[in-house]
Amino acid sequence: MSNGASALIRTLVDAGVTTCFTNPGTSEMHFVAALDTVPEMRAVLALFEGVATGAADGYGRMADKPAATLLHLGCGLGNGLANLHNARKGRVPVLNIVGDHATYHVQYDAQLQSDIETVARNVSPWVRTSKSTQDLCKDAAEAIGVCQGPPGQVATLILPADVSWSEGAVPIPPPQITPPSTADDATIAAITQALQGGGKKAILLGGRGLRAPALMVVARIAAKTGTKLFAEVLPTRMERGAGLPPVERLAYMAELASVQLTGLDHLILVDTKAPVSFFAYPGKKSYLVPEGCQLHTLASFTQDVLGTLEKLSTEVGAGQTTPVLQASKRPGLPRGKFTADKVCKSIGELMPAGAIIVDEAITSGLMLTMYTAGAPQHDLITLSGGSIGFGLPNAIGAAIACPDRKVIALAGDGSAMYTIQALWTMAREKLDVISIVFNNRAYAVLNVELQRVRASGAGDKARAQLDLKNPPLDFVQLGQSMGVASRRASTTEEFLVAFEHALRTPGPHLIEAIVPPSLAGLKLRVLPHLLQSLANLPQPIARALKRKIAP
Amino acid sequence: MSNGASALIRTLVDAGVTTCFTNPGTSEMHFVAALDTVPEMRAVLALFEGVATGAADGYGRMADKPAATLLHLGCGLGNGLANLHNARKGRVPVLNIVGDHATYHVQYDAQLQSDIETVARNVSPWVRTSKSTQDLCKDAAEAIGVCQGPPGQVATLILPADVSWSEGAVPIPPPQITPPSTADDATIAAITQALQGGGKKAILLGGRGLRAPALMVVARIAAKTGTKLFAEVLPTRMERGAGLPPVERLAYMAELASVQLTGLDHLILVDTKAPVSFFAYPGKKSYLVPEGCQLHTLASFTQDVLGTLEKLSTEVGAGQTTPVLQASKRPGLPRGKFTADKVCKSIGELMPAGAIIVDEAITSGLMLTMYTAGAPQHDLITLSGGSIGFGLPNAIGAAIACPDRKVIALAGDGSAMYTIQALWTMAREKLDVISIVFNNRAYAVLNVELQRVRASGAGDKARAQLDLKNPPLDFVQLGQSMGVASRRASTTEEFLVAFEHALRTPGPHLIEAIVPPSLAGLKLRVLPHLLQSLANLPQPIARALKRKIAP
Repeated sequence: MSNGASALIRTLVDAGVTTCFTNPGTSEMHFVAALDTVPEMRAVLALFEGVATGAADGYGRMADKPAATLLHLGCGLGNGLANLHNARKGRVPVLNIVGDHATYHVQYDAQLQSDIETVARNVSPWVRTSKSTQDLCKDAAEAIGVCQGPPGQVATLILPADVSWSEGAVPIPPPQITPPSTADDATIAAITQALQGGGKKAILLGGRGLRAPALMVVARIAAKTGTKLFAEVLPTRMERGAGLPPVERLAYMAELASVQLTGLDHLILVDTKAPVSFFAYPGKKSYLVPEGCQLHTLASFTQDVLGTLEKLSTEVGAGQTTPVLQASKRPGLPRGKFTADKVCKSIGELMPAGAIIVDEAITSGLMLTMYTAGAPQHDLITLSGGSIGFGLPNAIGAAIACPDRKVIALAGDGSAMYTIQALWTMAREKLDVISIVFNNRAYAVLNVELQRVRASGAGDKARAQLDLKNPPLDFVQLGQSMGVASRRASTTEEFLVAFEHALRTPGPHLIEAIVPPSLAGLKLRVLPHLLQSLANLPQPIARALKRKIAP
Repeated sequence: MSNGASALIRTLVDAGVTTCFTNPGTSEMHFVAALDTVPEMRAVLALFEGVATGAADGYGRMADKPAATLLHLGCGLGNGLANLHNARKGRVPVLNIVGDHATYHVQYDAQLQSDIETVARNVSPWVRTSKSTQDLCKDAAEAIGVCQGPPGQVATLILPADVSWSEGAVPIPPPQITPPSTADDATIAAITQALQGGGKKAILLGGRGLRAPALMVVARIAAKTGTKLFAEVLPTRMERGAGLPPVERLAYMAELASVQLTGLDHLILVDTKAPVSFFAYPGKKSYLVPEGCQLHTLASFTQDVLGTLEKLSTEVGAGQTTPVLQASKRPGLPRGKFTADKVCKSIGELMPAGAIIVDEAITSGLMLTMYTAGAPQHDLITLSGGSIGFGLPNAIGAAIACPDRKVIALAGDGSAMYTIQALWTMAREKLDVISIVFNNRAYAVLNVELQRVRASGAGDKARAQLDLKNPPLDFVQLGQSMGVASRRASTTEEFLVAFEHALRTPGPHLIEAIVPPSLAGLKLRVLPHLLQSLANLPQPIARALKRKIAP
């Protein structure tokens, strides 16, 4: 018997939830006080809730189990919403503990009173206000079970202050997990037939399909049946590098992704959805599956991905097939004029085995996947929900989940500023994170988007909305102000010195890379010329693209 | 005829909505492009949505009309939610324009798809997704009407990209405003009877009741009938200073507020609610109206406050009564050991007439209202919804609404970090704002709250959650990194030099005041000794308090 808060933390820890990213207020003070009663729980303070939720997202991606967040009523949850959105879209387990007023205080509509459940529903399929100390731990266990999925989910347990402070709670053991099922025989048979028949076919991998064990199985299937492998445009977590099967990512730009998918007769989905355009554009298609292409779902979000792939492998007789694996290959050290491209090349050349790359560099990171393709095995984490401000917080969570691995976080100047407070937590926790901020002094991606949406009439006022030159942001000062060792690089040589220093010196580092905008000012019709060198796009596709978009 | 975006901006401007605080993305690019078609619309870019919404809140408080925000789908709205909460609780008009995917794109559940309406409902009684370009301006006019109230409200117009980019919209004229009614005769009669009868009575003023014209009328009523005047604990905007009626603010701490309200027979509400405790505490009352005290509502949120007060004034025959007015009085220049108190005293001594003080300093600002009571007339803006991170953004909006007035924003180190990106917009727009950040290297208020909630067992882990020492934040570097002239003050003399420099030099300034925590480490039972000097609390109340809480 203990108070609600203590029993809750014990229940979390017993179920493996041993990390809590916090930004507490008065209504969470009993939870805070109870932290010391459960030594196994690590509490990591953030200065802003979006840092806490983004860190929980990164932790969940790398640990394959939820971290908890501790948030202060509806407003704290609101501040954390954007990064919870990314977790939701990435099917990442996250358990929110949101403090609330005491149950009897709600009626008075005090200043911080708001409808927390409604806010939570946008990101969290499971939401419950725990109404009694006696039921609190049961509610928590249920939330943990929901979180873990599959699919991984955000669950939100709202904890009224009196439920937290009252006595009479008893910790309960972790929930039983029902193992997910594999695809049924009819589905396996139909997809086997498609793979063994003629025509052009591809498997689109998302979620758990991009992890090493699944990749090894699906690569055998692909080799056996002559099937192309694609990764969804913004993978939650993708294991890649030398020795793993290479997988071509669908491009962010629908114009490009359409070319990648051209001519397909069968598209088979593994833990992902049919590909669609990120945004809608006047006169352009949103749905990217080519007409006449047959769509199959091999493994849904709720199913056992690895088991299903193994079943399919057996059915197509791929068990002994040699898969195509990525050769070890480094791009060489960059030289010459400093650009974002040179940063990506440096990473490809120098990154250590086991690195975790968190990529939120939007335009500046375009060449990253190409240069790192043959680097030692690593994980790539991307912006699964499209809500920027995810990168630096995610790096915190990844570093805490994997303390022996180097985390390299790439952010743009625009995106870094949404959750810049993350740097403080990196310094406080002495995390082994190298944050590289591409400072091109613009919302560079929006300069491209302004053209893609064919908006006309844009003048000085419109352009000013995309411009971060006035005043320029100084990320070295920002990093130092929060205790992170920070350097500026304006040349390729400066960048290499700073990056090599950061790689060999444990703890957090920030490198501000002063680069020209990668795509700013670019006319849409010349995009393909630049993009033909993009990522995994081979020359024939780039040529086809050029014909298609810039005749 | 023009596209939706152009006609929308024209409709806004024609209704007086001439400022838009923006953080746009791709789905808002047509709105951005259309900015140049309507010269009267000022667009102010923020690096984070919470800055944009907080700025709109501050603008609405000072301009008495809504600014618009331009936000990027549900995640952008989520990031803006906390400061919209403060606007909602303060009954401040704010018009959100939230971009959304094109109507036909929603079905594909792309990465940024979420349920925007649900997120909005937490803060916005009026929410509508405009479904057609033809109806867009009608929807906008309705939203503007709702915003303006009374009560002022947050309204949210969701703007799908295709509704924005399609042709066929026609701007429409501003909505007709129905003037609010005054209190009915029966109410006036009943309250007149209470005021003219025996017993102890007080009028509690909120919202529009704390503006100069209403204050002058209510002060005559108070003088005529021997009635005490109180202000709600966290006023949206309070006009005060020499020549205006002084009004005693209810204390944040319920223990104190209860003492202030002790023995009342009648409490009369003007544009506010019955006072309640900010949070609930074990074993303490949430509802602060004393037992046996009769509660009256003179003017509700929807009524004409000034007209109602004038009606009551006539009824009680106070038209010719001389009101009690605040004498001109400065506290003198501070000397000696540097504390938060000395900063407040400096402000009281040196602030110019017409200043706007935005107070989010929580513990460090305790003495502010006392020291500024007799300063030249000014406005005081406080944390109406309790959601921190409001101060620096609010100062932006106040400065844009009142370009000829000096804005002084007080923040704590903890609270400043929620929306620190506000500094960049201050620099970009060259706003006349002095941001004073009290750096006590702690969530000092939580050290007090930890005791108030009587949480037991707190050890090192718990205390670490309230501690901002490791690493220390450097606000001078933070300010400079975003283009704001910044100085550090560790002594009273350094502070005075920096503050006087900032007062005579237009444009944004930041002063980091390195101060000891005002209340940290304090035992609850010694609180009254310290608090007896608080704000407007006269000695007898402090003595009563001491007897009551620390016998």
